[in-house]
Amino acid sequence: MQLRIPGPTPLPDAVREALGRQMINHRGPEFAELIARVTRRLKPFFQTTNDLLLLTASGTGALEAAVVNTLSPGDRVLSVSIGVFGDRFAEIARVYGAEVVSTDVEPGRAADPAEVARLLESSGPFKAVLVTHNETSTGVTNDLAAIAEVVHRTDALLLVDAISSVGSIEFKTDEWGCDVVLTGSQKGWMVPPGLAMAVVGPRAWEAHKTARMPRFYWDFAKHRSYLERGQTPATPAVSILFALDVALDLLEREGMENIFARHRRCAERVRQGVKRLGLELFADEAHASSTVTAVKVPSDVDASRLLKLLREDGVVLAGGQGAQSGRIFRVGHLGWIDDADVDEILAALSRALPLARRMPARG
Amino acid sequence: MQLRIPGPTPLPDAVREALGRQMINHRGPEFAELIARVTRRLKPFFQTTNDLLLLTASGTGALEAAVVNTLSPGDRVLSVSIGVFGDRFAEIARVYGAEVVSTDVEPGRAADPAEVARLLESSGPFKAVLVTHNETSTGVTNDLAAIAEVVHRTDALLLVDAISSVGSIEFKTDEWGCDVVLTGSQKGWMVPPGLAMAVVGPRAWEAHKTARMPRFYWDFAKHRSYLERGQTPATPAVSILFALDVALDLLEREGMENIFARHRRCAERVRQGVKRLGLELFADEAHASSTVTAVKVPSDVDASRLLKLLREDGVVLAGGQGAQSGRIFRVGHLGWIDDADVDEILAALSRALPLARRMPARG
Repeated sequence: MQLRIPGPTPLPDAVREALGRQMINHRGPEFAELIARVTRRLKPFFQTTNDLLLLTASGTGALEAAVVNTLSPGDRVLSVSIGVFGDRFAEIARVYGAEVVSTDVEPGRAADPAEVARLLESSGPFKAVLVTHNETSTGVTNDLAAIAEVVHRTDALLLVDAISSVGSIEFKTDEWGCDVVLTGSQKGWMVPPGLAMAVVGPRAWEAHKTARMPRFYWDFAKHRSYLERGQTPATPAVSILFALDVALDLLEREGMENIFARHRRCAERVRQGVKRLGLELFADEAHASSTVTAVKVPSDVDASRLLKLLREDGVVLAGGQGAQSGRIFRVGHLGWIDDADVDEILAALSRALPLARRMPARG
Repeated sequence: MQLRIPGPTPLPDAVREALGRQMINHRGPEFAELIARVTRRLKPFFQTTNDLLLLTASGTGALEAAVVNTLSPGDRVLSVSIGVFGDRFAEIARVYGAEVVSTDVEPGRAADPAEVARLLESSGPFKAVLVTHNETSTGVTNDLAAIAEVVHRTDALLLVDAISSVGSIEFKTDEWGCDVVLTGSQKGWMVPPGLAMAVVGPRAWEAHKTARMPRFYWDFAKHRSYLERGQTPATPAVSILFALDVALDLLEREGMENIFARHRRCAERVRQGVKRLGLELFADEAHASSTVTAVKVPSDVDASRLLKLLREDGVVLAGGQGAQSGRIFRVGHLGWIDDADVDEILAALSRALPLARRMPARG
């Protein structure tokens, strides 16, 4: 079975074994060593020396945590959204009482740093800018370095959804000055969903002191204080931590540069392959993602029939979300994947496509 | 190793195997069947026909969910707290802007339904009453039937933390008229932490319509609407669901009545055993919990040394929390446990106790 959605991603055998480990006391010495070790080993993938906190939640929970830990109701926020997940980040801020200004980007395109700069000037000042590094719903990677550069011309905090990028695509938290960076365990980390990570920098901690959105479960300060004792405020997803510890062995053995290169190579192979099948890419190729590729569904093909045929052939891909539902399908190529997997996906696609075409109307 | 803290609890082999299953698409047909099956099979343990929602979070997240889905800032709430977890429930309501009135109960005692009735009359009206069914920090089970009876003389919602009770101790959601009931996967369910359950009744849904506390990740309505399609709003803790599905096989095979009887029997065996060792129970025996027993640490015994000696002897117990830190230790006897396990715990205690006693002062 080729599970090729943009997360959950397939689990290597060693990770599956680790998941089955017997429980331990989450307030005991073994857990304290585990969380310290995992936290320390994750940081290089974020290229950061900031605090790294583990939340028992989906990635969406981490987005909510970033908002409520740094903002107050009434704060003005710029949302650099280029798709469903960017919209979600903005909606969370709105629900908690922020006043959100959104960029307007055509689906499949990246955000234009010059347009972000223009909005920062014309509609600011903003307390924070919300940016999606890699938009999972369209398969687009934003030029975060350039966006960060224009954001830092102002005092705004930079809160980054890196859920489907960090660990698979190079991410420079400290160099880019990202104040909060978020991801989830079920992406490039090759472990099941259930654990989210939040990297919190000094300016975010400063904002936390005066931020008045209500928070309890998501409170970063509580997490940091418990982490100092090798614990979490509430009972953590222990088995996902076991798995992550082992997945980090695999990731470290391969090496960051090799991981990034493999993702770029697999993504390119997917793009070339679908084009050879006569399909059209949804995303602007200049900003095409290394972790997920969105492909336009031809007008004579039924998207759900195509996905069903593929599934019956052992390849699970994702459909479109929101406005793109039925109009695109998406190939997740992050985590445990290599060229041979890509070739299997493409072969299955070549078999399914003709069968998914609608019969031409008679007469 | 005997892991005997009040959660995480030990995992049976079949559960550990299920945890290691390969990932599936959380938006696909296999997952839809899984979540429908698990949800349906959990309801009998809550004795309910209400909606049952699965949240990817610790139990504390479920407490927060209950509050923000039913209440508005400024709402008056009665907290029937008898320990650390009751205080936590109240604190969450306070953080989100509720005006909280708290009962004052001596640690180790259950709440007095007559006192709850008095407060409801003298300090009401209240929008909701927060009750802990089983207080994990003191090993006390409240008489929820009696408390529910007095609460229902008013219009207040009844929100119940059943985290360390339901599944192990009889719980009658519908008969007692509990509007929201919460628990976590790492308790009597014999699976790892990471999944919380919320049972939501018609009056809670009614309250949800007008409740104005901000919510996104915890939104019950979003969870219900996704559940109708066999999904969750954000990526769920899939591996914990695999485990829970298998744990439910074990629980159903044993049968609810037998499970409850086994918990009562093991708890009684623990209590008799520690008393035979000359130790004193912390909780009022009339309300002693069937899932966790708190034991007073004798004045000549160092609590952390005792726990360390036990750990080195293969038995992991929990210390006291908050004001009881160093003054009590706690034995978790919920989930996968039987008489022989209790005997091993007691034998280890009998070995460790003399070694943990402080030397008498010289001269």
